[in-house]
Amino acid sequence: MSILVVGSVAYDSVETPFGKKDNILGGSATYFSVAASFFTPVSLVACVGNDFRQEDRYLLESRSIDLQGLTYMQGETFRWRGRYGYDLNDAETLDTQLNVFASFEPKLPAPYTNAEFVFLGNIDPRLQRQVLTQVKRPRLVACDTMNFWIEGQFESLLETLRHVDILIINDAETRQLAGEANLVKAAKKILGWGPRILVVKRGEYGVLKFSRVDNGALTVFGAPAYPLESVFDPTGAGDSFAGGFMGYLAGTGRVDPEAMRQAIVFGSVMASFNVERFSLERLKELTFKEIELRYNEFRELTRFEDVKELRESLPVS
Amino acid sequence: MSILVVGSVAYDSVETPFGKKDNILGGSATYFSVAASFFTPVSLVACVGNDFRQEDRYLLESRSIDLQGLTYMQGETFRWRGRYGYDLNDAETLDTQLNVFASFEPKLPAPYTNAEFVFLGNIDPRLQRQVLTQVKRPRLVACDTMNFWIEGQFESLLETLRHVDILIINDAETRQLAGEANLVKAAKKILGWGPRILVVKRGEYGVLKFSRVDNGALTVFGAPAYPLESVFDPTGAGDSFAGGFMGYLAGTGRVDPEAMRQAIVFGSVMASFNVERFSLERLKELTFKEIELRYNEFRELTRFEDVKELRESLPVS
Repeated sequence: MSILVVGSVAYDSVETPFGKKDNILGGSATYFSVAASFFTPVSLVACVGNDFRQEDRYLLESRSIDLQGLTYMQGETFRWRGRYGYDLNDAETLDTQLNVFASFEPKLPAPYTNAEFVFLGNIDPRLQRQVLTQVKRPRLVACDTMNFWIEGQFESLLETLRHVDILIINDAETRQLAGEANLVKAAKKILGWGPRILVVKRGEYGVLKFSRVDNGALTVFGAPAYPLESVFDPTGAGDSFAGGFMGYLAGTGRVDPEAMRQAIVFGSVMASFNVERFSLERLKELTFKEIELRYNEFRELTRFEDVKELRESLPVS
Repeated sequence: MSILVVGSVAYDSVETPFGKKDNILGGSATYFSVAASFFTPVSLVACVGNDFRQEDRYLLESRSIDLQGLTYMQGETFRWRGRYGYDLNDAETLDTQLNVFASFEPKLPAPYTNAEFVFLGNIDPRLQRQVLTQVKRPRLVACDTMNFWIEGQFESLLETLRHVDILIINDAETRQLAGEANLVKAAKKILGWGPRILVVKRGEYGVLKFSRVDNGALTVFGAPAYPLESVFDPTGAGDSFAGGFMGYLAGTGRVDPEAMRQAIVFGSVMASFNVERFSLERLKELTFKEIELRYNEFRELTRFEDVKELRESLPVS
């Protein structure tokens, strides 16, 4: 099944302890689309300015991403400038220029309205709903958000959350959204607002998935991040994660709890590759074989055996 | 097999967002001993002042901990005063009074010199070696340390590390000890100094275990922390972890890689119980049944299925 994504396509200027690059391809929808494209056909809804480079369009096309929904508008493409310190966990935003993105009103091409899997990237919650209302019968809707919308559009965000199945945000956003320091309590609160699954991204510490089950209890799944010897550029890690996660579900057409766990790991796999190089440099040369190998490395990284009749074998009673 | 532990027995005064307790039983060797005692007999080497309360001695005895090595000295027991904020990850030390601990020179009772499993709690690296030289033929030696020794006794600490199999420290200590921001690089460096296993405690983010294997490569095992709805007092979490970890290995007499993975999880189980209440309140009423149940919850928390012939089933090639 194909997946529909709405979000930003951007030119980023990024500084990390390992280098500096200006005006490189970025944006939430870009990272998401390329990561998801390894698993399923992707339909992209976003806008760019008339400065959008042909080579960047080719990159998306080379991954068979459907660009009917990529609107060219008069003006410049969205620009973000950021810097990472040595701990590489948090970006410092130095400059944001919305440009054409400021007047973006997503309108789906007719074929996209049949989408069954939908990812609402980190944009104004009003626009996220505007996309949703155009989709006829979505089977699984996931969305992202950030502190800017939590602070400035809280009520509108809550309205969006009433219509999504899965919220994918980081741990600081989870605590801020719920107004609750304890992550389990925060998850319970948020899962009372609409989503049945909350995926909490924790950067180098991995991911926690909280699921609401029928009896009102929570089930939790945790996966560590892949331990990398060199993290080059964390930009797009969260969107690559979401792309791998939703891409796997859409590609297999599964929405069951077992598939959700596997999807978390495929998301972690895609994020781990993405941060190895600047921009989309690593993802664009990635092979499916490498994805499968790293999935198996995650299995090895996390497995441990059951214990049986332990107490009887111990020297204490 | 029994386990020998050397470390501190203390009276702590702890303030968390959930309450405040003065002069409660604490200390690295105390938490370690009680946690390990669920798996194996424990021999404790530490010192206390003549103010040490009989009820606290009874608590240790009720866990069948051998106290031949607990020396009573003239003066007061070691005291620590600390405070935790809402994130509960880092303690702020408000006051430390070494008292009798300042002149502690560990001397093993004769039966202890046959110990096969040894844990060197967080004390002066010189004293850690002083214990080791008294043990005849240790099979597995683990040690802890902290920023104070890394900064002030670096060379002495390196000398200790040459004689230990497993170093158990937190992530900030790992980075500081290696002088390296990337955890994988830091682990490689430290594993070149003696230990063949490095266990990195990351509080609410779980644990990573790095093991040096014969070809010079690293194998990594990662486990998340148990997601707790209420963390009451994080004091002793690291020592309870070490107690569960080493206790399981000593109790089963195993030192193989599979047992090490299980031991990491048992350590995480003991730490997760410990933080549910102040001081040793939770551990002292804990049952082995609860430990086994939570181990199984960790299995459920982390498991995910293999994928087979995935690519053939996906709608993209």
